[in-house]
Amino acid sequence: MSNASYLVEDEKVDYDPQILLRKAHAATSSIGSATVIVAMLEKNGTLKIANVGDCGLRVLRKGQVVFSTSPQEHSFDCPYQLSSEVVGQTYQDAMVCSVQLMEGDTIVMGSDGLFDNVFDNEIVSTISRFRDASEGAKALAELASNHSKDINFDSPYSLEARSRGFDVPLWKKVVGMKLTGGKLDDITVIVGHVVST
Amino acid sequence: MSNASYLVEDEKVDYDPQILLRKAHAATSSIGSATVIVAMLEKNGTLKIANVGDCGLRVLRKGQVVFSTSPQEHSFDCPYQLSSEVVGQTYQDAMVCSVQLMEGDTIVMGSDGLFDNVFDNEIVSTISRFRDASEGAKALAELASNHSKDINFDSPYSLEARSRGFDVPLWKKVVGMKLTGGKLDDITVIVGHVVST
Repeated sequence: MSNASYLVEDEKVDYDPQILLRKAHAATSSIGSATVIVAMLEKNGTLKIANVGDCGLRVLRKGQVVFSTSPQEHSFDCPYQLSSEVVGQTYQDAMVCSVQLMEGDTIVMGSDGLFDNVFDNEIVSTISRFRDASEGAKALAELASNHSKDINFDSPYSLEARSRGFDVPLWKKVVGMKLTGGKLDDITVIVGHVVST
Repeated sequence: MSNASYLVEDEKVDYDPQILLRKAHAATSSIGSATVIVAMLEKNGTLKIANVGDCGLRVLRKGQVVFSTSPQEHSFDCPYQLSSEVVGQTYQDAMVCSVQLMEGDTIVMGSDGLFDNVFDNEIVSTISRFRDASEGAKALAELASNHSKDINFDSPYSLEARSRGFDVPLWKKVVGMKLTGGKLDDITVIVGHVVST
């Protein structure tokens, strides 16, 4: 991400988020793998997005989510990733899209640690309580952290797990129990308000 | 929609789906209102989308939904609409976005009668059973129709209703019942496979 931040002004990137991913990935020497999302807002209000894996982005307008990215995964809990090894995905696997923003829109970006633990309606209600973008981001990260440690919270993650056939053993289901709980994970949240210049 | 289909080649539309909506709405003399979505695929693989309300579009790639539009609504079950009256929304309220497609992608578009009654994973599994796009569309419409009439099916619509606080009366909840069922509605489905020319 620091490489992406550094390379965003690179002439050869030419405001193309997929090229930015390619160059940032190539410039990375750290060992490991990661899901990634980048978004570049042009002066005409077009937000260009490239993502690989289960990071995400939401656009909030007039109190509702009007745009949302979708995660890419090999199977449940196994997202597409850019890796330091030859295995894994490349910038060519990125989902590339763009969305026309308006003044007053709010952009919420985050890792799966946010979206696995916080529902979209909670994102909307949390953001509505803060004028300041960084305060909103902190509140969302805190909410995600709290939910991630709550074994009784029926999170987006536990809902998804059950819809994929994962659940508590049959004897627990018989007595009315079900798989619940947040997902412990690293959590990154970025919030930006769209204003005219 | 017939106006949009007719006007898509209009020079002044200039491949802009939002302008297409404006011109198609202005050319409509029928009384009433409607949610609407239009999508235009350019030769470079960019699919440009404009939607007002709760029609939707999904892009399927390698057996998963990798792109999805979000509905716009005033409140639950009350979507944004273009109307023959001065009330209602205009093309300026459209959510405008674009997505970069690849050969092999499948586009599924539909009215809320589809998305209120059929889950995304069902769309993926249904589409995977048909090579022919029109056969896939028919199968999806049939599935949506069957679910819409099934009072026991826990549909996307009933899930959403419960998440908004709508449910069966308390005495029914006490005995373990919950609001279920599909949503009777008109159903439109369009399926297209992306091939190189």
